[in-house]
Amino acid sequence: MSYFDAASAAPLHPVARQALLASLDEGWADPARLYREGRRARMLLDAAREAAAEAVGCRPDELVFTSSGTRAVHSGIAGALAGRRRTGRHLIVSSVEHSSVLHSAETHEAGGGTVSRVEVDRGGAVSAETYTRALRPDTALVCLQSANHEVGTEQPVAEVADRCRAAGVPLLVDAAQSLGWGPVDGPWSLLTGSAHKWGGPSGVGLLVVRKGVRFAPQGALDERESGRAAGFENIPAVVAAAASLRALRAEAAAEAARLRELTERIRARVAAVVPDVEVVGDPRRRLPGIVTFSCLYVDGEALLHELDREGFSVSSGSSCTSSTLTPSHVLRAMGVLSEGNVRVSLPFGAAEEDVERFLAVLPGAVAGVREKLGASAPVADVRGDELVVDALGKRCPIPVIELAKVIGDVPVGGTVRVLSDDEAARLDIPAWCEMRGQEYVGEEPADHGFAYVVRRVS
Amino acid sequence: MSYFDAASAAPLHPVARQALLASLDEGWADPARLYREGRRARMLLDAAREAAAEAVGCRPDELVFTSSGTRAVHSGIAGALAGRRRTGRHLIVSSVEHSSVLHSAETHEAGGGTVSRVEVDRGGAVSAETYTRALRPDTALVCLQSANHEVGTEQPVAEVADRCRAAGVPLLVDAAQSLGWGPVDGPWSLLTGSAHKWGGPSGVGLLVVRKGVRFAPQGALDERESGRAAGFENIPAVVAAAASLRALRAEAAAEAARLRELTERIRARVAAVVPDVEVVGDPRRRLPGIVTFSCLYVDGEALLHELDREGFSVSSGSSCTSSTLTPSHVLRAMGVLSEGNVRVSLPFGAAEEDVERFLAVLPGAVAGVREKLGASAPVADVRGDELVVDALGKRCPIPVIELAKVIGDVPVGGTVRVLSDDEAARLDIPAWCEMRGQEYVGEEPADHGFAYVVRRVS
Repeated sequence: MSYFDAASAAPLHPVARQALLASLDEGWADPARLYREGRRARMLLDAAREAAAEAVGCRPDELVFTSSGTRAVHSGIAGALAGRRRTGRHLIVSSVEHSSVLHSAETHEAGGGTVSRVEVDRGGAVSAETYTRALRPDTALVCLQSANHEVGTEQPVAEVADRCRAAGVPLLVDAAQSLGWGPVDGPWSLLTGSAHKWGGPSGVGLLVVRKGVRFAPQGALDERESGRAAGFENIPAVVAAAASLRALRAEAAAEAARLRELTERIRARVAAVVPDVEVVGDPRRRLPGIVTFSCLYVDGEALLHELDREGFSVSSGSSCTSSTLTPSHVLRAMGVLSEGNVRVSLPFGAAEEDVERFLAVLPGAVAGVREKLGASAPVADVRGDELVVDALGKRCPIPVIELAKVIGDVPVGGTVRVLSDDEAARLDIPAWCEMRGQEYVGEEPADHGFAYVVRRVS
Repeated sequence: MSYFDAASAAPLHPVARQALLASLDEGWADPARLYREGRRARMLLDAAREAAAEAVGCRPDELVFTSSGTRAVHSGIAGALAGRRRTGRHLIVSSVEHSSVLHSAETHEAGGGTVSRVEVDRGGAVSAETYTRALRPDTALVCLQSANHEVGTEQPVAEVADRCRAAGVPLLVDAAQSLGWGPVDGPWSLLTGSAHKWGGPSGVGLLVVRKGVRFAPQGALDERESGRAAGFENIPAVVAAAASLRALRAEAAAEAARLRELTERIRARVAAVVPDVEVVGDPRRRLPGIVTFSCLYVDGEALLHELDREGFSVSSGSSCTSSTLTPSHVLRAMGVLSEGNVRVSLPFGAAEEDVERFLAVLPGAVAGVREKLGASAPVADVRGDELVVDALGKRCPIPVIELAKVIGDVPVGGTVRVLSDDEAARLDIPAWCEMRGQEYVGEEPADHGFAYVVRRVS
């Protein structure tokens, strides 16, 4: 098996495993207690906090451990917003943040706050200038990920931090995807991370709040973790998380170079060996281990299943794989193709031969899925000077497949009207036009769903 | 070392350790993913949920895993209150609940809700009748622990549940201390637990919400754990927690009888071999492993330190040991002595010879602490027909020690007035009177602190 989904969760690092085992015997007691077992637990917790703080680049008393990265984000955003409530209730996020940030933003809106969701370019990046143009006198908090979890694009965090600092507004950085690779530059105010992304165990996140940042923890709390993360400390896991972060950092520079070469190879080779593919994400400013691409005329779930059978574990932002039936919000915000989407995120130590085997297997897997899907003929009508394709009730990627089949049937200058009630069509039909050099005219409400109109240009 | 603080945290059960190790390799991936590692993780999670639900006595889809018992309580109370907001915003808790319940109640009050805190008897128990007399038309939720964490007293949960059911109000049971021993009887609506109390790892709590109970999860959420516990699932820990609960239950009946005999022995022997001691908590309706007593004229921290040196890890509800400088809210609510308080909570498998050694060591440890504290003479003045003791600036247990020293200096019928600014005096001076058969007249505000007036009766 080749596990290529490290951006979801990394397998436990051997150092983390060792640290976890050792501290199961030493770190189970209540660190608030004064007896021997409690003092031992306290020492382990303090040492883990120091190690994690050193890796993050903060003071130990600025860092608390939470029960997950998601919890760190939820608590960090809620606490920072409440701490600045007098200034206002405006929050800035990018449209490609992790769902934990977007859920926090929705909760903030439901409670009467306002949220600006800043757009990204086609590579998935925000511009520091555009981002900080959203600042208002009542802005309480700005959130920005260090790098995107679906396409690997790095954000201009240091520049945004500088601008936020100048404006006197705190910046919270969701560093979940990048913290294993190195600290986050710039004068950020709050930072969150998630241990199982860097080879630590599940159940550990971290929340850093710089001294001087106004912060009012929300919800019921207790005295643990400076009153910022309630509940009995999970010390064995925290110790393992800190050990793993330190171990990864020691190898980070060399491993980054190695993985970057491998993902570069995937980027180039996928584009060369798979027809009708779009490699997405910023080609240069990106994490070392993540590469994402989308394949026209492919059902994402079927492709994942095919790859799983071949021994590859990858994920997808296609609507056709998730239970929600909507395409990834990241791909949608980028305006890129979502159908047949595949994210490859290589774990530390991923073997070159596994990558080569993946590249060898992929073209056949894509072709196989396309063959199965492409069999039936589209239902098409000529109405006046345009061709109408009725794809109602058909799911991604069928509407795009049918569009592609009939486009040659209209003369250059003529139009195809695709009727579809599939959410993914809104994203994938324009993306197809962009890829094939056809003109996307726009969408119109129809009796059922929408009509997506495309003009044949070539 | 003899660890006698299982009510704080139990060491990892060997079965939990084994299950944790096994699932570190099998359960680290995202259970929402469709590839092999994800499916394996999902199977482990499902199996753990089924095992835990069986032990609790609920349906698997009624149970979610949280990141701690505290989190389960916070989320459970907030969600149940929000779910019944139309009915009203009145919450009933007992005055001896775990701090996580009381913190939730404070948060509810801060948000505009109302809270009734029902008193307990001197043994720490509520009466089902008094408890449900607090029900009002706008009562949204009733909370009651299955058993108290400081004194071991069992609450009449089944009876309260019946009455709540009849009134159409949900009951949330905090079962943290009892779940290892058995399921909670009665038609409760919500239930919470904490794995590290039953030999599971830290980082796992459980929240059960019966079908049909109105529940509106609060705060930012995600799709995990039925939308009731956000953040990546900690599967290895969850598997270990469920395994440990099941293992404990298999031995529970026999072990309960064994530990009950040991704590009975402590209850009887402590009262016999330590002078001026009050054994607290209900003598019959109590958990098998917990016994708590308070020693007059003893500094709790000094006694814990002494016992730690002798190899015993116990905890205390005395003000003189905690960082808050206030005595335990449980002892206060019971109206019992808090000074020199010791809680012995035996873990599963606690050895009889360790208990015997504890009983052998205790009298000397108490006597040693008393000797060190009793050296200086109190500052006492005769004012009119009463003796005034100036204990201002002196901490527990000094005010009580000085009262005891001078009571013989006033004639029967005369009074002693103790000036004290120590919070514990308010609890401990009346408790001393009760123990020594003297009359507690009452307290009056003084220039500094309060004057506590005692009449010599015998």
